[in-house]
Amino acid sequence: MRPVAPGGTIGILGGGQLGRMTALAAGRLGYRCHILAPEAESPAAEVSAAFTRADWHDPAALDRFAAAVDVVTLEFENVPVAAVERIAATRPVRPGAAVLAVTQDRVAEKSFVNAAGIGTTGWRPVSSVEDLARARDELGGRCILKTCRMGYDGKGQVMVGPGDDPAACWAGLRTDAAIAEAVVDFALEMSVITARGPGGALASYPPVENRHEHHILRRTIAPAPIGPQAAAEAVRIAETLAEKLDVVGLLGVEMFLGRDGRLLVNELAPRPHNSGHWTMDACAVGQFEQLVRAVCGLPLGDPAPFAAAEMENLLGDEADRWPELLAEPGARLHLYGKREARPGRKMGHVNRLIRR
Amino acid sequence: MRPVAPGGTIGILGGGQLGRMTALAAGRLGYRCHILAPEAESPAAEVSAAFTRADWHDPAALDRFAAAVDVVTLEFENVPVAAVERIAATRPVRPGAAVLAVTQDRVAEKSFVNAAGIGTTGWRPVSSVEDLARARDELGGRCILKTCRMGYDGKGQVMVGPGDDPAACWAGLRTDAAIAEAVVDFALEMSVITARGPGGALASYPPVENRHEHHILRRTIAPAPIGPQAAAEAVRIAETLAEKLDVVGLLGVEMFLGRDGRLLVNELAPRPHNSGHWTMDACAVGQFEQLVRAVCGLPLGDPAPFAAAEMENLLGDEADRWPELLAEPGARLHLYGKREARPGRKMGHVNRLIRR
Repeated sequence: MRPVAPGGTIGILGGGQLGRMTALAAGRLGYRCHILAPEAESPAAEVSAAFTRADWHDPAALDRFAAAVDVVTLEFENVPVAAVERIAATRPVRPGAAVLAVTQDRVAEKSFVNAAGIGTTGWRPVSSVEDLARARDELGGRCILKTCRMGYDGKGQVMVGPGDDPAACWAGLRTDAAIAEAVVDFALEMSVITARGPGGALASYPPVENRHEHHILRRTIAPAPIGPQAAAEAVRIAETLAEKLDVVGLLGVEMFLGRDGRLLVNELAPRPHNSGHWTMDACAVGQFEQLVRAVCGLPLGDPAPFAAAEMENLLGDEADRWPELLAEPGARLHLYGKREARPGRKMGHVNRLIRR
Repeated sequence: MRPVAPGGTIGILGGGQLGRMTALAAGRLGYRCHILAPEAESPAAEVSAAFTRADWHDPAALDRFAAAVDVVTLEFENVPVAAVERIAATRPVRPGAAVLAVTQDRVAEKSFVNAAGIGTTGWRPVSSVEDLARARDELGGRCILKTCRMGYDGKGQVMVGPGDDPAACWAGLRTDAAIAEAVVDFALEMSVITARGPGGALASYPPVENRHEHHILRRTIAPAPIGPQAAAEAVRIAETLAEKLDVVGLLGVEMFLGRDGRLLVNELAPRPHNSGHWTMDACAVGQFEQLVRAVCGLPLGDPAPFAAAEMENLLGDEADRWPELLAEPGARLHLYGKREARPGRKMGHVNRLIRR
């Protein structure tokens, strides 16, 4: 496995802000980037050398894209597996189709995590009203019903309480494959981002605390205010999963720290993760450069931060606060160049280093 | 003067690595960049939303470029003044044509600096062999003969010693407008980079020491190992020149610190400067983001570094050292994506923070 040397072309599946920040990091190391995405507007394409706008199901476009790049990664984990397999016939795709097959489906993902000997919240597959009613009973009288596929930021999920009508909840979700998850009384939501190279090298950023509002990440506190034992266990979990999944690239692992001190895995993301944006300004090598290093087969960077940090997402018209944020000493502003500031849309973030 | 808000388009004159790093910094703040340059290969265009490849003397291309951008800056100070004036008829160009008229001509530049009450090495305009012979006598028996225009990295200059034939030296330079400069016995070569906004706000990075080899910058040490008085005087000189030139953007001021403690200005560059690359990793706001802030009329960032640093240029095939540099803990590698590694060509640089 020879590395893809600087000067080479990295293909990126998906055109959003994670692709944009990956392309900026790749640009710093002398790479060219080529974006493949179906949308006309692409924050990533605007900082990349090439953009193929095409449907994921257009084989000729996939082939042209593959022929134009040296290695492929992704910023959007719901790329159809068939598209990834087609590209992988001629170019390395990192992470690959087998990883996506697991992480695109909540039941497959939870099953995989449990099979690795790692705890999750209780869960049941749900494909009917009857399943849902039974799952609610078995999970303690209430549960969160989520579509198996394509949900994010609280989309495609609904809380099913003791007084709710399972039939209405099920019908409202408009799916035939769902999962019911137990409601956890957690002390902290946290995450670990692990990088893994093609030769198996691992590098994990320290665990961070994530605070959500309306199911959307609002703030990340790095490192998480937890003890060294819990931190080591969280890293062990993330690295175990990255190895067992055979990820090449990044794996973001969201976890709950229970009030009993147990760690339960919530969700996996085989790509840069919003909760890793703080690394851009608090580590010598941030998560986006680390992704580039991993997928190109370069030495991984040191993930130890040189400062504690807080990351605050700028959602919707909060990005209009840019004049005050630019005037704030030490604040590092990142904006994604999105034209329309819809409510809740991730428009940018700000990192603040914390001197302790 | 309303600011150009993030999401706007910044036009950049010149397509090299300084434009590339400006575009990467602009991308981080949500701007689009549009490069105008005559060369087919452009490191800057590969990380920008748009590229107009055109001659500086193509009025239709200049007009199309101007119509497509909100504000214009430059990474190459030898853009013909007429081109800048044409663009400036419809869009702000920062810095503007009047600045370039001074900094493009060594005699105009030295005259301007002296008129501002600031010392330079001794110099004489030279437009004939007789001028050169007289200048050498008056400057102490030896001098450096330089073309007035378009010289860089030691190109377009020759040392004229006591035993050299002035006629041969003059003929070898192939110009009709030159300058003879006295040879200075300096203790240190240094520089200051000052940012200035459209409203006159100033922010200066601390003075740095520059070490050259074969007339090309090899290494920058930040901050320069000089006393607080010399540092304050160097900043005062740079800010005075930025104000008197009415620069909007960046001004890099190269100076000699004489063995007598006097500061003499050597050269001005109204753009990001190689000796400011260390700021990318040692300051919350590096010189490229600072340029974006200045030309867009945003608040300037704090130029105080959070760490001491050293910058090492990677010239020619030195960029092939990327595997070891990527493996070096804490080293931050920047490569420019240039295809051909000609000897002495600036291919990248590496920043190292110094913990003291």
